[in-house]
This record gives sequence, C-alpha cells and structure tokens, in this order.
Amino acid sequence: MKTVTTLAELRSARAALPGPLGFVPTMGYLHAGHISLVELAKQQCKSVVVSIFVNPAQFGPNEDLSAYPRDIPRDLQMLQDAGVDLVWLPTPETMYPPGFQTWIDLEEITQPLEGGMRPGHFRGVATVVAKLFNAVGPDKAYFGQKDAQQVAVIKRMVLDLNFPLEIIVGPTQREADGLALSSRNKYLSEAERAAAPVLHRALLAAQAAYAAGERGGAALRALMQSAIEHEPLARVQYVSCADLLTLHELDTITNGALLSMAVYFGKTRLIDNLILD
Amino acid sequence: MKTVTTLAELRSARAALPGPLGFVPTMGYLHAGHISLVELAKQQCKSVVVSIFVNPAQFGPNEDLSAYPRDIPRDLQMLQDAGVDLVWLPTPETMYPPGFQTWIDLEEITQPLEGGMRPGHFRGVATVVAKLFNAVGPDKAYFGQKDAQQVAVIKRMVLDLNFPLEIIVGPTQREADGLALSSRNKYLSEAERAAAPVLHRALLAAQAAYAAGERGGAALRALMQSAIEHEPLARVQYVSCADLLTLHELDTITNGALLSMAVYFGKTRLIDNLILD
Repeated sequence: MKTVTTLAELRSARAALPGPLGFVPTMGYLHAGHISLVELAKQQCKSVVVSIFVNPAQFGPNEDLSAYPRDIPRDLQMLQDAGVDLVWLPTPETMYPPGFQTWIDLEEITQPLEGGMRPGHFRGVATVVAKLFNAVGPDKAYFGQKDAQQVAVIKRMVLDLNFPLEIIVGPTQREADGLALSSRNKYLSEAERAAAPVLHRALLAAQAAYAAGERGGAALRALMQSAIEHEPLARVQYVSCADLLTLHELDTITNGALLSMAVYFGKTRLIDNLILD
Repeated sequence: MKTVTTLAELRSARAALPGPLGFVPTMGYLHAGHISLVELAKQQCKSVVVSIFVNPAQFGPNEDLSAYPRDIPRDLQMLQDAGVDLVWLPTPETMYPPGFQTWIDLEEITQPLEGGMRPGHFRGVATVVAKLFNAVGPDKAYFGQKDAQQVAVIKRMVLDLNFPLEIIVGPTQREADGLALSSRNKYLSEAERAAAPVLHRALLAAQAAYAAGERGGAALRALMQSAIEHEPLARVQYVSCADLLTLHELDTITNGALLSMAVYFGKTRLIDNLILD
C-alpha cells in the first residue's frame, strides 16, 4: 500500500494503477462501515484508492472540527489489512491554498434535514468531493447510506456536473444492538452509548407501522419522535419522512420514503436513517 | 469530423480519440478567433474536440440570449476545414435537465468588471465549463484572451477544484483596424462598426503612456475613458486598470496590469483588453 500527500504524488501514483479504479473518500478514524465500502470497492474494481481528510469546509463555526477524532496510524493499518492500493492524505493547505474561492452550491436538496441544521455543510461536502473526484479520477466512488442526504447531494452533483463516474452506496453498518457505526460514537458516555440504539428502534417502529399499512408522513414522524422521547438521555433535533429524491417532507407516502433523524445525547449529535420502498 | 449531440455519444466518440486531447469550448457563430484556438490545439494535441453551446445560464434576464447569433452549418464547415476531430452540440435540455440545481460560485474574482456588470454571468460560465470539462475530459482546454476575466475565473476554478487539465490562452484576434473579433460585432451598424476600433486605440494609448513611464492606475483609466469619449457613438460602461490575478483596481502598477473596458455602441456591448507586463 502506497501513501501520498501532495497532488503531484497522488496523480503519479494513481496513473500507475490498473482500472477500473474504486475510490472511498473518508475523514479518517475508520470503522467497519468504511471498511465495508473498501471491501465493496475491492469486489468491483481492480484498484482501490482511499482518501483521509478532515474537511474544515464542512464543519460549522460551532461544530467539532478541532475535536474530530483522528488516528492515522490505526487508519493506515486497517486500510493495509483491507488490501487498499493507495491512500491520499492531503493537508488542509493542499486542499485550500491561499486565494481559494471556488464553491459548489446545490439548491433545494441541501435545504432540509442536515442542510437545514448545518448551514454551509453541504457546500463544504460538495466542494471537497468534487476536488477529490478531480484529483483521484475514479471510475466508481463509494459512500455509506448512513449519510443519506450526503448520498443524495453527491448523486445530484455527479449528474448535474457530468462527472464521469458512478456512485455506489453501501448499506449502513451497525453494532449488534442496532447503533449505526459512526466516528462520533466515541464521544458517548457509557450511559449515552446504552441509550443510543433508540434511533434504530424508532426507525424500525416506523418501518413496522409502514409494513402494517400506515402511509401518513405525520403519523410516522410522530411515532419516531415519541419512540425517541421515551429515552430520557435523547433530545430530538429532527425526525423526517421525506421523498427519496427531493427530500421534501411527505404528507402521504406513495412511492417510498426516507425516514431520518438527528438526535443529541449530551453534546454528541447522532444521525440515522432507513429507506421505505 | 464526427458530430454528436448526447453525452453518451460524446463519451463513446471521445474514448476512441488518441491523446493528448485538446478542447475548444465555444458558443458558435465562429470567427477567426475561435479558429486560431483550434489551430493552437491542433499544434499541441493529437485530437481536437470543439463544443458549440449557447449557454443560457450565463446570460442575464435582459441580455441577448434569444438574439445571440447562430449558424451551425457554417460553423461545422469551418471546423471541418480546420481539421477538428469531434464536435459536440449539446441541447439545453441535455445540459440543464429537470431538477438541475448545482452551481459553481467563485468569490472575489467574479465581483469586478464583467462580473459587476453582469450578475450571475460567471456562475453560468464556471458551471457550464466544469460540465464541459467533465464531459469531454480534455488534457488541454483553449480560451481566448479577449475574455480576460473569463480566463482568470476559469484558471482559478481549475486550480481550486483540481481539474486535471491545462488552460491554454490564445491571443485576441483583431480586424485590420484593431477591432477585436467577436460574434457580437455583427450587431453593429455601419457607423458603429467604423467607430468601434476606438476600444483598441484607447488600450494602445494607455500602453504607450505606460511604456513612457506612467504607473498611475487612475491616470491610465482617465486616459482610456477620455480616448473613448472622443468617439460620439461610444458610451463607456467601465474602464479598468487592475491586478492581473485578483482583478482589483490598481492605484499604482508595480507588477503588470490588465487594462480592460466595456463600451456600448447603441445596444451592442463590446469588450476589449490588453495586458501590461
């Protein structure tokens, strides 16, 4: 496994890799969710490139950029064990050099849910992902369903800007008790960790109601809200039952839906989601 | 020479062309300025692709989109004669499908000059150029110095977003009397056409003053303004003496400058520029 830092090193190392080339962009502090994307890429591609970059542009001024967990030696060991060919570790100065001023903005799709709660977040995500795509030049790029709105935003950007690649979405990886894997789970206290599976339970309760015939968006949102509120350590930021493509909230489900939520445990903000189809 | 319309046809035809690949994006109604870029591309590359697309997104609501001159048969003949390999003629529906919502915004560099007079213009330019780059996948892309701010914006975007290509700038092509070639020159009446070389004369006058030692931005701007005002059919929109990279107006020239201007003749708006170095 080769490790590079500069854009020139990346381009030269990438040119030597046989295609098709799979790419897994990450912010590091890897867990089994990331590795499941690497494994998917290994199955579908001849070469696999991973980037590790904690992107300042997607953190708001009051978010956890400086506290975001980092463990590069451990990450590199995991990627080596998973059979990755090339890891790119750009510096913030490489990615945002002096005079940087080009941003990618998506309209409606970035307004609700995470975009509503985290202004500027998806501008930062779209911009860095476009940069990573242009730098790496992958045939397929891999993202986790855990960040459902991110997936929708990136798919829309790839379509709108004619990026010559395919987006592959891997399923959310979970702990045995249902908690979705996330680098932020390490922030949880023991009691919060014990309470956190309530997100998944709420999603499953809404899915069961849907399976039993419930098609009302408001009813499913109320059901998830109430399920989470039974957990005293949890504080709901939003629950949503939205259109799969536009992410607009639905009155009535006619053609599938994205159930999603953001919930605080103390200062730690967790998200989760589930697709009804 | 092959002519294609859809993105799928383009990708398939492009894949068959040997590299390095040169790309000349145009809005059609070609003149010798465009052909000089094609010739430059022919010299430097194994294959040359040209796009013709009158991009609605870079025209303001009160601008000349519907009146913009078009003559595709003549354009194709000129490109065939110039030895182009592949011409892409996308439709507006191909470029901006339903639900399109992704835009590329540059900050400071789009604020003055053309960007100041044409709000949203460079958002449209940057977005369509990024789409064209992603669709065509060139090694080198060719732009004319005539659109000096466009060149600066696109170079900045290529750097900021890590596009894997080189921007090559061809010199402004001029009529014998100095008028810069432009598809919009056809709008000029006979009298306006006779008056229009005043832009170039004003630039040359400022260049002569600079050669004689003048380093004051205000003095050079006043000199150009006054030269143009001697022509009764001309109405100055702006004259500028700006930093080559940031496009900020200069008090004193220490490290070169971009002289530029926009001038109306009746309803026709002409631009021209010259670099002092």
